Amino acid sequence: MAQAQTPGIDVDRVEQDITAISRFGFNEEDRGVYRQGFSEPDMAAREWLRAQFEALGMGHGIDGAGNVWGRYGPEDRPAVVIGSHLDSVPASGIFDGVLGVAAGLEVVRTMKQNGVVPHYPVEIIATSEEEGRFGGMLGAQAMTGNLTLEWLEGAADEHGYKLKDAMTEAGLDYTKALHAYRRPETIHAFLELHVEQGPVLDLEKVTIGIVEGISGVFKWKVRMIGKADHAGTAPMNMRSDALMGMVDFAHEIQRIIDEEGTDKSRITIGHVACKPGFPHTVPGEVEFTIVGRDLSEEKMRAIANACERVLSSIARRHKLHFEYERMSWLEPAYCDAGLMQLIERKAQDLAYSYKIMPSGAGHDVQFFCNHTRAALIFVPSVKGVSHAPDEWTHWSDIERGTQLLYECVLELACEKVPAQA
Amino acid sequence: MAQAQTPGIDVDRVEQDITAISRFGFNEEDRGVYRQGFSEPDMAAREWLRAQFEALGMGHGIDGAGNVWGRYGPEDRPAVVIGSHLDSVPASGIFDGVLGVAAGLEVVRTMKQNGVVPHYPVEIIATSEEEGRFGGMLGAQAMTGNLTLEWLEGAADEHGYKLKDAMTEAGLDYTKALHAYRRPETIHAFLELHVEQGPVLDLEKVTIGIVEGISGVFKWKVRMIGKADHAGTAPMNMRSDALMGMVDFAHEIQRIIDEEGTDKSRITIGHVACKPGFPHTVPGEVEFTIVGRDLSEEKMRAIANACERVLSSIARRHKLHFEYERMSWLEPAYCDAGLMQLIERKAQDLAYSYKIMPSGAGHDVQFFCNHTRAALIFVPSVKGVSHAPDEWTHWSDIERGTQLLYECVLELACEKVPAQA
Repeated sequence: MAQAQTPGIDVDRVEQDITAISRFGFNEEDRGVYRQGFSEPDMAAREWLRAQFEALGMGHGIDGAGNVWGRYGPEDRPAVVIGSHLDSVPASGIFDGVLGVAAGLEVVRTMKQNGVVPHYPVEIIATSEEEGRFGGMLGAQAMTGNLTLEWLEGAADEHGYKLKDAMTEAGLDYTKALHAYRRPETIHAFLELHVEQGPVLDLEKVTIGIVEGISGVFKWKVRMIGKADHAGTAPMNMRSDALMGMVDFAHEIQRIIDEEGTDKSRITIGHVACKPGFPHTVPGEVEFTIVGRDLSEEKMRAIANACERVLSSIARRHKLHFEYERMSWLEPAYCDAGLMQLIERKAQDLAYSYKIMPSGAGHDVQFFCNHTRAALIFVPSVKGVSHAPDEWTHWSDIERGTQLLYECVLELACEKVPAQA
Repeated sequence: MAQAQTPGIDVDRVEQDITAISRFGFNEEDRGVYRQGFSEPDMAAREWLRAQFEALGMGHGIDGAGNVWGRYGPEDRPAVVIGSHLDSVPASGIFDGVLGVAAGLEVVRTMKQNGVVPHYPVEIIATSEEEGRFGGMLGAQAMTGNLTLEWLEGAADEHGYKLKDAMTEAGLDYTKALHAYRRPETIHAFLELHVEQGPVLDLEKVTIGIVEGISGVFKWKVRMIGKADHAGTAPMNMRSDALMGMVDFAHEIQRIIDEEGTDKSRITIGHVACKPGFPHTVPGEVEFTIVGRDLSEEKMRAIANACERVLSSIARRHKLHFEYERMSWLEPAYCDAGLMQLIERKAQDLAYSYKIMPSGAGHDVQFFCNHTRAALIFVPSVKGVSHAPDEWTHWSDIERGTQLLYECVLELACEKVPAQA
């Protein structure tokens, strides 16, 4: 790497850290990680991280939302934040979230080793509860002001266990989560390095994804209602088969995207239930979910409208009724164009292949996109697998991602500080 | 009815009997009938029926399978059998099966009233366990020799309750079910009158269905296997969406019937389950049932082959694997052409509208089709509803069906007895 002026990052140390963190909540049986937000392994991993910050001589602490931070550099200037999460879904792999934190440690380590004295401090933040055990992204929401006491007190996991009780058990005062807010002027830039969790980079053999934004997403629950009939006595042309309504809709999905969407559009039917659901009975009712995504909210609206029109015309054609419930609508979030250019320039300098792409999954960074300047870097996930024990990213891709992060942070942290007015 | 030589049947008496039988197992709450095979209400209804036979001066008895029979006419000749069942599915209507038995009573009552002395005895048989609580049609199977001790001892209901235990509790010796066999030469003809349980007669405003046969039926359980993916990170063209395989198959159903089947073909997907079944996950696997029917076994085979070809080509197209289990294959059964002609002639004499049609549902008669000459007459089911408390047939249709049955039985029972060889 002729462009690098100083020794680069050491991927062996990143591997050591990722491996060390993987032990918190590791299950020998399925070889999955169980480090759900505010669980014992999650809090233990946070303690471990603070010990690393201490060893590196960094200032450190844990805020009211459970975010652990470590700081290297001057106290009085806005920070270049390297942020990602330490919590996991049940039976997770070892990279999701952890990569961004471990890479942050390596960036600071390398800066220190190279004797870099940054103008802006570098701050590593391991956010809390990104995976939504309690229905949100608590750490990032708290830091960016997207949190209310009402939500904090109401949030519960799928078993009804309350977020506030989980925080109390973890030794935190949940009301203090509202103190975790970071004024935007305290952040110079926010950078996240994450595994793609999708197949695109792996399939296209590209090393780096420069994320242009986090797709918006809507979720609908649709019910098609026809008439349950005996599958033997009801002739094909006398049926009101609710399942056939779902089937016709599913068949229109690609056309809807072709006509109304973009190559970043996704429409997914993930759940289908027939009633009564007996082999010998024509389904009288079918319930299914539609999840739509795009990077443009206007396109999302066009897709949603097209879905509604298609459902309505299919219902008429099959003599069905239909009803749907809009469960959620999350608007897209956009990464900072300047930071994207910086990442692109550095990737070019390092001669890494890259592509500009959306993120279909949610990430901590999305809350920072509307708060400060923020960007997200992807490295490939082998076969796109994530949220599963066999999630994998090759160490050579981890190396390139971390090196790229280092170069970007270095430039941002060493930017000239404007003279005080 | 100018054609009737003697007073016809009295539908008020049929209504009284159907109403009387409906009280056995009637549930005031959902107004459904709960008279499952060998339950207390079922056995009580059988006792009630024997009392009616007694009152009519008929010989009567209960055979080893629980079939109750009543006989009017000479002892030593083969019988014109009027057969249907008294048991019901849970939450049933009042006509299913019961109509054929009650109509039989009215036929004998009217014969006696009109002073008819039949050459061949008329026998009414209320078969046992037609609805398949224990997985078969016990009474009809026993009479036609389609029963083994092994099956008798193994059969159980959906809760694991054994047929043999149910029979013992009902006061029957289950091994005696094998004694219920009726040699074909003891039956002059078998006639069943039943509600259609489908929408055809009601929608087409036709009074009588002359059934040409009982459709054969096959049941498959199909699994399409793709790859579960994050619904946000997996682009549409990089998915192996198992649900889309099911959807494509469902879309081919009508074409398969148009190309390989007949207007009597039915293909139904009654059950669909996605795995993991989460709204935000592309289904990695989908399991669904295919139930196919036709009156021609050759057509059934053509349809089944086409289903397999289509599944295979769809799997290739969507990068899926598929496997399927052939759960069952029941061949069609055909009604007797001579008896069908008799019914048609009598319907014409009575100026009743009629149509020749298949039966998509199973009936007692299907076992007699391969055993002796047998036929099935349908009357309309309002909106095709059956196996539900709101099953209904207009009394004027009951009247016409019973009158037609009477005319046919009369002719068959009064046929000249050939001189002994």
